[in-house]
Amino acid sequence: MPFAKRLDQVETSAIRELFKLLGKPGIISFAGGFPDSAMFDVEGLCQASEAALRHEPGAALQYGATEGYQPLREQLARFMAHKGAQDVAPEGLIVTTGSQQALDLIGKTLIDPGDKVIVEGPTFLATIQCFRLYGAELVSAPIDADGVQVDRLEQLIQQHRPKLVYLIPTFGNPSGATLSLARRRRVLELAARYQTVVVEDDPYGDLYFGEAPPPSLLALSHEVPGSRDWLVHCGSLSKVLAPGLRVGWLVAPPELLARATMCKQFSDAHTSTFAQATAAQYLQAGRMPATLAHVRAVYAERARAMGDALRGELGAAIDFVQPRGGLFVWARLTGADGGVADGREFARRAIGQGVAFVPGTPFFCAEPDHATLRLSFATADVDRIREGVARLGRALHAAPALQEA
Amino acid sequence: MPFAKRLDQVETSAIRELFKLLGKPGIISFAGGFPDSAMFDVEGLCQASEAALRHEPGAALQYGATEGYQPLREQLARFMAHKGAQDVAPEGLIVTTGSQQALDLIGKTLIDPGDKVIVEGPTFLATIQCFRLYGAELVSAPIDADGVQVDRLEQLIQQHRPKLVYLIPTFGNPSGATLSLARRRRVLELAARYQTVVVEDDPYGDLYFGEAPPPSLLALSHEVPGSRDWLVHCGSLSKVLAPGLRVGWLVAPPELLARATMCKQFSDAHTSTFAQATAAQYLQAGRMPATLAHVRAVYAERARAMGDALRGELGAAIDFVQPRGGLFVWARLTGADGGVADGREFARRAIGQGVAFVPGTPFFCAEPDHATLRLSFATADVDRIREGVARLGRALHAAPALQEA
Repeated sequence: MPFAKRLDQVETSAIRELFKLLGKPGIISFAGGFPDSAMFDVEGLCQASEAALRHEPGAALQYGATEGYQPLREQLARFMAHKGAQDVAPEGLIVTTGSQQALDLIGKTLIDPGDKVIVEGPTFLATIQCFRLYGAELVSAPIDADGVQVDRLEQLIQQHRPKLVYLIPTFGNPSGATLSLARRRRVLELAARYQTVVVEDDPYGDLYFGEAPPPSLLALSHEVPGSRDWLVHCGSLSKVLAPGLRVGWLVAPPELLARATMCKQFSDAHTSTFAQATAAQYLQAGRMPATLAHVRAVYAERARAMGDALRGELGAAIDFVQPRGGLFVWARLTGADGGVADGREFARRAIGQGVAFVPGTPFFCAEPDHATLRLSFATADVDRIREGVARLGRALHAAPALQEA
Repeated sequence: MPFAKRLDQVETSAIRELFKLLGKPGIISFAGGFPDSAMFDVEGLCQASEAALRHEPGAALQYGATEGYQPLREQLARFMAHKGAQDVAPEGLIVTTGSQQALDLIGKTLIDPGDKVIVEGPTFLATIQCFRLYGAELVSAPIDADGVQVDRLEQLIQQHRPKLVYLIPTFGNPSGATLSLARRRRVLELAARYQTVVVEDDPYGDLYFGEAPPPSLLALSHEVPGSRDWLVHCGSLSKVLAPGLRVGWLVAPPELLARATMCKQFSDAHTSTFAQATAAQYLQAGRMPATLAHVRAVYAERARAMGDALRGELGAAIDFVQPRGGLFVWARLTGADGGVADGREFARRAIGQGVAFVPGTPFFCAEPDHATLRLSFATADVDRIREGVARLGRALHAAPALQEA
C-alpha cells in the first residue's frame, strides 16, 4: 500500500521497545512519563461525572462546539488566572484532546514541509515526532539547569529563521530544568524582536515541591510589549488530575486560535463533551487545590527519596540536579570508578538487575548526549524507589543481561 | 503570522454561517446532522460511567494504549460481529476519537499533496475538508438512489488512479442513499482489481427502519478475494449511543492500522480512556440492543411523518426517495408551479418562515446540484416536523427574508 511520504520522517520510538520489557515480573520502573494512578481523585471525579450526566445530559453526551464546552473554558480561564495568567478570557483558549492534540494543531496550522523548528536538546519525544510528521526540520538548542541557553537560542533563531520555537520552560520533560526568570524575559523579547512563534508547553508547572516556579511565559508576556502576539501556551489536566480525561487546552493569538479550531474540526470535531463536562464539574466543585496539594506532597517526598538514594548508591558515578518539581530526575553518567558511561548500555544492564528507566539519547533531535538518562520518581513509592536505586547501583558494574537485537 | 500552505485548501464552512441563524427564537431546525439528545440512554451511561470509575479507576483515568482500551476493542469486535463482520479481531481495529479522527488518520497516513481522492457527489462535508487539508484533490462520483454509480466509479478510477475512494454506502450523509448489494460486490471487485483503497464510512448502518440494509462492505469482503487488503471501515457510537463520548473505530489492513496508530500517537496519544471504559461497560451491560430498537422506532416514525408532510405540503415542487434509515431526507426542488428551484434561495426564504435546513450545494466537492437540500428528521418530534414542513410549503412561494451578505 503506498503510504504518504510524511511517514518517512518518523521512526518507531526507541522507547517502545524498552517498554515491552516492563512486563517482566518484579521490574521496578522509573521509565514511565505518567502520574501515579493511586493519586487520582476517583471520588471527586465520580461525583463530577454523575453531576455532568444528571444535570446536563444533553450537553455532556451531544456534539459540542469545536472550541470546547463553554463552562469548561470558563473554569480553565479561572484556573489560568490563579496561576498568574490574569488576562486569558474563556474565548482566548480552546479545549484540546490532551495537550498532545494542541501540539498536533500547532503543527497542522503552522508547519510547511522544510520549515525549521527549534526545540530544546533534550525535549519531549512526541513533540519531535509530531512536528516531523508535518515536515519540520528540527534544530536542537542546548539547555542547562536554568533551561534553554538564550544566547545560543538567539543565534539559532538568526541562523535558521524558524517557524516556531518549542519550549517546556517549567520542570521540563525529560530535563526537569526550569527556565530562570531572567531567561523567560529574554525568550519573550526574542519572540517579539524576531516575530517568531514561541510555544510554551506547560504540563508540569503546578507540580512544584517548595517554592513556586517563576511565572509562565504567558503570565509574564504583559511585561514584554509585542510578545503576546507570538506566544502560544499549552496546558493540560493530565499530570495534575487524570490523563484519561484527555483534557488539554491551547492559548494563542486570535488568528492562530481560529485556524487551530478549524483544523480541530476536521481532526476530531471536538474533545469528548462527556470528559469536558466532567472536568468542568470537577473544577467548579473546588476540589483542585486539595488535589494539587496532595500530589505535590507525594511527589516531593519521592523526588527527595530518589535524590538521596542516587547520591548514596551511585555517588560520583552520576551527576544530576535535585528536581524542584515535575516527575523526573535527569541524570548524566560520569563513568567514574570504571562504571558504565552510556545510558543505553546502563539501561540494558539495569533491566538485568530488575529496574527500568529511559536512556536520554532518544530525547535529542540532534547531537544526543549518550551519557544521559531519565528517571521518573512519580509512580514508585519511597521503599520501591530505594530498592530500585539500589538495583541501579548494582547495575553500574554488572554485565549486560540483554544484547541489542 | 505565516500559516501553513495547507490551510489555503479549505474554506470556512458555508453551513457555519447558516447555523448562526438557528439561534433565532421559534425556528424549527431540520439543519442538524446529530441525533436527538432526548434519546440518549442517560441512566445506562451513568451506570456505565460509575462502574468504570469504581471498578477500574486506574484504567479509566490513566494514560492508555494508543490502539485503544482492550476491553472496548473486544466489545467493538463483538458489536461488529453482530452486524455481520464476523472476522474482525479486537486487534484488527483501533479506537478513534470519533470517526472524524479515523478520517483524519486515513488522510495523514495515505494522502500526499496532489493525490486524487474519489468521493460521492454529494458527500460528508467534513471529509472533503479533512482530506483537502492533506492536499488531496477531490473527484466527485455521481450517485443515485442505489448509491454510487459503479460504472462511472470504475471510469473515474481508471482516469484518476486515486489514492483512495471514500464512500458512505449505507444511509449516506447527506444523500440517505444505500448502495445496493450488487453494487457493493462491484465496489469490492474494483478495490481488488485496481488495488485502490476503499474507505467505508458507516455511522448510520444501524439506524434502519424496516428491513436491515445489505451487509457492509466489510461484512461482504470475504466473498471477494483480495478486497479485504484494500478495505478500510470506520465505525462510530455517535449516532446510535452518544456523540459526546467521541468513540469511533477504524478497521484496516494491518500495515495501514499500524501506521494509523503511530499517527494517532502524535495526534492525541489515545482516545479518552474515561470515555472508552464507559463505552466498554455500556456495551458489556448488554443495553445496546434495546437502545438501538428505541432509536430506530423513533426515527422511523419521524422519517415517515416528514415524508408524508413533504408530499402533502410541497407536492410536485419537491422530489425525494423516502428514507429507509439514517437521519436525512435528501430532496431536489423541481421548480414546478413556479416554486423556488435553488436550495440556497429556498433556505433563505425558509428562515424567513421560521424553519431551517441545509442547502445541498456545499456537499458537492465539484459540479454541485444547486436544486438539492438536506432535511434532518432526527431532532424534531412529529408535531414539530409537520409544522416545520408546513412552513417550508409557505416558503416555496415566499419572498426571501434575508439577503446574502
